[in-house]
Amino acid sequence: MNAGSTGKLVGVGVGPGDPELITLKAIRALAEADVIAHFAKAGNLSNARTIAAEHLRREITELPLLYPVTTELPKCSSGYRDALRDFYDGAAATIAAHLEAGRIVAVICEGDPLFYGSYMHLHTRLAPRFPVEIVAGVTGMSGCWSAAGTPIAQGDDVFSVLPATLPEDELARRLADADAAVVMKVGRHLPKVRRALTMSGRLARAVYVERGTMAGAKLTPLAAKPDNDEAPYFAIVLVPGWEERP
Amino acid sequence: MNAGSTGKLVGVGVGPGDPELITLKAIRALAEADVIAHFAKAGNLSNARTIAAEHLRREITELPLLYPVTTELPKCSSGYRDALRDFYDGAAATIAAHLEAGRIVAVICEGDPLFYGSYMHLHTRLAPRFPVEIVAGVTGMSGCWSAAGTPIAQGDDVFSVLPATLPEDELARRLADADAAVVMKVGRHLPKVRRALTMSGRLARAVYVERGTMAGAKLTPLAAKPDNDEAPYFAIVLVPGWEERP
Repeated sequence: MNAGSTGKLVGVGVGPGDPELITLKAIRALAEADVIAHFAKAGNLSNARTIAAEHLRREITELPLLYPVTTELPKCSSGYRDALRDFYDGAAATIAAHLEAGRIVAVICEGDPLFYGSYMHLHTRLAPRFPVEIVAGVTGMSGCWSAAGTPIAQGDDVFSVLPATLPEDELARRLADADAAVVMKVGRHLPKVRRALTMSGRLARAVYVERGTMAGAKLTPLAAKPDNDEAPYFAIVLVPGWEERP
Repeated sequence: MNAGSTGKLVGVGVGPGDPELITLKAIRALAEADVIAHFAKAGNLSNARTIAAEHLRREITELPLLYPVTTELPKCSSGYRDALRDFYDGAAATIAAHLEAGRIVAVICEGDPLFYGSYMHLHTRLAPRFPVEIVAGVTGMSGCWSAAGTPIAQGDDVFSVLPATLPEDELARRLADADAAVVMKVGRHLPKVRRALTMSGRLARAVYVERGTMAGAKLTPLAAKPDNDEAPYFAIVLVPGWEERP
């Protein structure tokens, strides 16, 4: 507790899933925090909290931030965007009240806090008003290529992270234009991703990874995975670069 | 020691520079290793060894791998390539002898072992013959955008890592084609990188970072950095995405 002065917001990366891939700095940040906040879907455990569980102090105040249930709203609708914006506004206001009371609030994040994560919605709202610190974390994609033992990029390679939501032609164009790539959020887009990899001549190199650093990880050359297979939302496809490797 | 059986090669990421950004898994790998190998230029300390210093056992066998002095050879020459290839072949052979004797050899790596690092040259030579494990690490670029407090990519952003060695036109094209980017190995290429950012309309967003997570870090909007300034080889430029941030 930091009474008498303004508190501090800390975005704490806890790594990709394996609880051992947490850093010493994250562990210290969790020990120093008065409040631990974590995002989760209603009815689900927060992945970040599961990863960090053994480092939370017993007397810690927990602040679960539960995403609004928006399943009835199409993702591109203004209703969906408004519901999310209101949710982040409310979460930021709750955290601001703790910060104004002089507390240190750690928001625990899977992977790295500033690389494709919900924490950033709090950061943009609160960083202009309060002291903020970021504890970098091991990203999910690093966890995946490490689990697969796949060198991803070397030397002067151009490396791209591509969301699987891109249209097929654009995905193919970008895959052909990069030396190395990671395709994220594969889920129901897997057949399209496979076609884009084929169009760009990269299918033979592609590696499919599911639950990269967790129990029950699945790692397989994508070409060897049955085409009719389904993929969970967080599955990724690695396209290694370093074509001239010795 | 693992006597009687074959040893194990472990590529251990120790993070971007701040000794606290090492993972518990890396610390355990260092405690279990019989031999610790690290790359360095002759006459210089290994950065990775400096980061990991307090976690090395006293009785540990150290194997410094000193890059050949090739300053008299142009980088694109076959002489340069041959000297490096011979160096990696020799380093792999030395490590192979330890592995054949049943030892666990940890190669410590700045950042993440399979993301633009020298370890990969050993990995490709040894992974076909010996058991290998990779311990993912926090990358240098994560360390930099965390130190800068700069959300780098969000949602469906396309994120690209671009070497500053690319020709100016190609750099400008790729900067315009990505939502978010990191330009690496800036060094003497800074004036060209600045021109490419201007051509692609991204200069106003760009953040220059030097020694991101080390003492004496320099962080500044690139537009505010004097144009005639020199940059060290490992300086990077962040080009944040998430244009529609709230």
